[in-house]
Amino acid sequence: MRAVQLTEFGGPEVVAVRDVPDPRPGPGRLLVHVSRAGVNYADSLLRENAYLGATALPLIPGGEVVGRTEDGRRVAAMMTAGGYAERAVVPEHQAFAVPDELDDVAAVALLAQGLTAWWLIHRTAGVTPGDSVVVHAGAGGVGSLAVQLARNAGAGRVIATASTPEKRELVRSLGADATVDPATEDLTAALRAANEGRPVDVVLEMIGGRVTGQSIDALAPFGRLAFYGMASLVEPDAVSPRALQRQSATVSGFWLMHAFARPDLLARAYADLAAQVVGGELRIVSGGEFPMSEVREVHAALRGRRTTGKVVLDPSR
Amino acid sequence: MRAVQLTEFGGPEVVAVRDVPDPRPGPGRLLVHVSRAGVNYADSLLRENAYLGATALPLIPGGEVVGRTEDGRRVAAMMTAGGYAERAVVPEHQAFAVPDELDDVAAVALLAQGLTAWWLIHRTAGVTPGDSVVVHAGAGGVGSLAVQLARNAGAGRVIATASTPEKRELVRSLGADATVDPATEDLTAALRAANEGRPVDVVLEMIGGRVTGQSIDALAPFGRLAFYGMASLVEPDAVSPRALQRQSATVSGFWLMHAFARPDLLARAYADLAAQVVGGELRIVSGGEFPMSEVREVHAALRGRRTTGKVVLDPSR
Repeated sequence: MRAVQLTEFGGPEVVAVRDVPDPRPGPGRLLVHVSRAGVNYADSLLRENAYLGATALPLIPGGEVVGRTEDGRRVAAMMTAGGYAERAVVPEHQAFAVPDELDDVAAVALLAQGLTAWWLIHRTAGVTPGDSVVVHAGAGGVGSLAVQLARNAGAGRVIATASTPEKRELVRSLGADATVDPATEDLTAALRAANEGRPVDVVLEMIGGRVTGQSIDALAPFGRLAFYGMASLVEPDAVSPRALQRQSATVSGFWLMHAFARPDLLARAYADLAAQVVGGELRIVSGGEFPMSEVREVHAALRGRRTTGKVVLDPSR
Repeated sequence: MRAVQLTEFGGPEVVAVRDVPDPRPGPGRLLVHVSRAGVNYADSLLRENAYLGATALPLIPGGEVVGRTEDGRRVAAMMTAGGYAERAVVPEHQAFAVPDELDDVAAVALLAQGLTAWWLIHRTAGVTPGDSVVVHAGAGGVGSLAVQLARNAGAGRVIATASTPEKRELVRSLGADATVDPATEDLTAALRAANEGRPVDVVLEMIGGRVTGQSIDALAPFGRLAFYGMASLVEPDAVSPRALQRQSATVSGFWLMHAFARPDLLARAYADLAAQVVGGELRIVSGGEFPMSEVREVHAALRGRRTTGKVVLDPSR
């Protein structure tokens, strides 16, 4: 079968489509005929061996697929690797039924990004009605869903950061009440100003660097910051427990990998997300469907922050 | 009236009983004829101007009283200062009705310590059935209640640290399944060993220094550490958000002061705690009732870690 296989770490040039043997499912695994494979920012970190977990070569990247099982069921599934391929093997308990009304891009967008946004809003940060919620990178894959899930959870005010006027326009169309340019020097003041002068209850943070600390400083008593990524590749300053105590504030980390230990909850989350899309309450921003043969250009665009919304690969092309 | 008044900061010698004018309640305040005044560790920090908030002199210490209002109602109340006195003025919404079945020591123990333990267990850490819960300083005022509240909330395993064999015996009698000496060099390993080899879900931390970081390292995925004090007076190391992400872990600060913004919830918590004591499910450890004239010795004993359980002053003596 055709697949993207990494045999060394490096820039986009190490990513190439090759002919590789078909994978074979072991016990508790399903073979999926891949219709579309999701592309994630983390895939490009993995390519450089800069991701959270250790990685062994050779490797077929890709942790998300939508397609059909051998017995014809339409499923969306997550796995450690192997998604950029015509066929993929996935753990049974990480494969979720996809309603016919969901298109392929939506079905894939609700996996890593949808489940992350859902977990951040409903578990890690525990958004309750009336909360003010800041979503950094609000035009991104997770962000665009988190803005809407926050609103659907009854947030009193949703504030999204986005780096260009076009992205800020997009997050407003998704329901953000205010937008902030994350390049603003005094981000703490800008976030509070966007919240009508008040400190904020929740921040979903995936930028890192100074954005993390300046966002923590914007928190209200009992405020929660959920740190789930470091797109800037710059480590944020460490956080003083004593400073957290002074504000009764919370800093949480979240890595979706740990949620796999709760497949029951993930399946419930996926079904909830799918129902919101089908019901018209959750809009998927498509970043485009690309031939798998263009994977290098797609990774380069992702790292250059030139994409908006969910990007998928078509392994048949 | 007789009261303890600070006119300068310093050691126990600056604390003395004097004759001072009676306080007068303004709007929204109640005058309470004090039967017993609670003594807290924080009072001794305040004496040295080492507490979280800024402090102005002269000052009557004491943030907790139980007694009768002018119209004869028995109340327990919290306030910023003024408790070490025959009469005290308290904010109406921080005064809670005390059932007749509660003795004075219990009524006071359920204020700063009871409400802190309740908030930590039910709000900050959000203990759910099956969680393993570490309670540092388990023989202390907050700790001895938190051990029992954790058990009553359905914790799967309660692990308490305590610095002497006598204190470890006490926390076992309160329902701790295992105990650990906090002086253990590798506290991370000791906590995991006490949890039958597994990392822990919740840590309630008020020691500071190396205890904080070594406890964070003992957390399981989705584990939560609640930092609510620094009895060692040693700042813990700052916490890397990236390290929290690697474990999907949470570090929260908690300062009871912020809970005063939710008087409805505090009143509910106090009533819940009182019902548990009356129902025999929550045991109050008394640290003794002392004449107010012995306040210096009491502060010295508290700082020397020679007390166990709730200590109260009798302002009539």
